[in-house]
Amino acid sequence: MTPTTDRTAVEAANTAFYEAMETGDFDTVSQLWLDDGATPITCVHPGWPVLTGRGEVLRSYALIMANTEYIQFFLTDLTVTVTGDTALVTCTENILSGGPAEDGAELGPLMGQLVVATNLFRRTPEGWRIWSHHASPVLTETDDTPGGDDPDAPGLHGTP
Amino acid sequence: MTPTTDRTAVEAANTAFYEAMETGDFDTVSQLWLDDGATPITCVHPGWPVLTGRGEVLRSYALIMANTEYIQFFLTDLTVTVTGDTALVTCTENILSGGPAEDGAELGPLMGQLVVATNLFRRTPEGWRIWSHHASPVLTETDDTPGGDDPDAPGLHGTP
Repeated sequence: MTPTTDRTAVEAANTAFYEAMETGDFDTVSQLWLDDGATPITCVHPGWPVLTGRGEVLRSYALIMANTEYIQFFLTDLTVTVTGDTALVTCTENILSGGPAEDGAELGPLMGQLVVATNLFRRTPEGWRIWSHHASPVLTETDDTPGGDDPDAPGLHGTP
Repeated sequence: MTPTTDRTAVEAANTAFYEAMETGDFDTVSQLWLDDGATPITCVHPGWPVLTGRGEVLRSYALIMANTEYIQFFLTDLTVTVTGDTALVTCTENILSGGPAEDGAELGPLMGQLVVATNLFRRTPEGWRIWSHHASPVLTETDDTPGGDDPDAPGLHGTP
């Protein structure tokens, strides 16, 4: 495949992953995670510790889906880099989500959240599969030149 | 090289990265980040947006080092997976850090922080180099079976 085709295929796999989350399609989420019997997958949800292996990772998705009535991802700042059989995707997840309804309401309260994700894919005979997903909340104010000349810019603590 | 040698080399590169942060050795940090002229590096500090490319990433380290008087990383939960020329490391960074001293004190106030990191390395002729680093704060209480049976477990919001 040409690099352009690779890039398109990786971006499609990345999109499919978020669409499966939006529709609560656990089977597709499970299918998109790497399952080669040798490479342990790793996953970090925003604010969570590292989850390792299909058992822990897929259990977390089942739990999140059970507690999420509505979720929509607007992906921005997408970058895709393919090197051999590995692809790295970074993106900003602009998330709108809501929990179960209360007191007869049609939908629970909605909340917006700004999250950044680093998604690592492996090429397999069945297509690109997720090897690692790391998502984290954006906690700080930023301008167009992060870490540029702002003396109040944050350190490693994540708080200004 | 055997897989065991690869794993040892990757772990050594990962350790060198954190030791360079501890000693404020900007040159070594710069050297450890991939610089092949083709692959854009990506970096997420805890609570930060994605930084892309050596310019943005190295500027952020210069800024962090300038604002950090003391920092020590105690790494736990280290996992290393090598596949071909790519290696994935996950670890928990138990951070103890402090800012500049105030009012004649020898050291500013120290703070502890729990962070998890996903570090991606590429094999180069000069050794393993960092392709991507994503670090994020652990915001939630967890037990030994994340996402197991806890009805109060967090969703994608990162808050219980």
